[in-house]
Amino acid sequence: MGFDEVVLEANAAFYHAVESLDCEKLDHILAKDEPVCVVHPGWALVSGREAVLESWTRIFDHAGVMQFVIASATAHVEGDIAWVTCVEHLTSVQGGRVIEGAVQATNLFRNESGTWRITHHHGSPVR
Amino acid sequence: MGFDEVVLEANAAFYHAVESLDCEKLDHILAKDEPVCVVHPGWALVSGREAVLESWTRIFDHAGVMQFVIASATAHVEGDIAWVTCVEHLTSVQGGRVIEGAVQATNLFRNESGTWRITHHHGSPVR
Repeated sequence: MGFDEVVLEANAAFYHAVESLDCEKLDHILAKDEPVCVVHPGWALVSGREAVLESWTRIFDHAGVMQFVIASATAHVEGDIAWVTCVEHLTSVQGGRVIEGAVQATNLFRNESGTWRITHHHGSPVR
Repeated sequence: MGFDEVVLEANAAFYHAVESLDCEKLDHILAKDEPVCVVHPGWALVSGREAVLESWTRIFDHAGVMQFVIASATAHVEGDIAWVTCVEHLTSVQGGRVIEGAVQATNLFRNESGTWRITHHHGSPVR
């Protein structure tokens, strides 16, 4: 399996962790070393591992369900950094309402001692 | 000057090129090698150097003015890849209307033979 495939697996694992609505699973997926940052759709940057996990906790607290169908995932690997672009077709339940939408994502991964971990996630709504 | 400063200069040069509304200037700034991709605010991914330049041409055709004040620019360098997060405070004139807004950006740069060139730009509106 080439690096591209390994990184795409790490990308899929990231979305499975988010779907689980379980911050402990996300904790395992996130890069251990800083920088760790996230841009949720419509948000400004959240910077730092602790703050990033807290931001997901807030999102999970308000979501009954988050389900992703990931399309057009493409990986680029250069040394110990890789980035994946993909489209998230997201179905979520918030306050009893079903919300569907498309999010364009850029995800950065770092090779930490042989494991590709997500260090930066940027998601933005597609009009 | 450390790599961080050099990358932040490349980031500033990118915005100056956009402000010039001149695709030739952008052509000099963009990475020479693929992948070259861009996510404009509200858009899906545009992929490939030619398509990226065309997308800017379309934007420049509709903009009389684009002026940026860049805030919170932070660079991370790992090997030949670097990424910058920043907030673009953008003032533009489109169809005679002045539009102001904040855009959260993630910009990826690649060290190509000693020159840091932008390989991926992801901008998204901040609510």
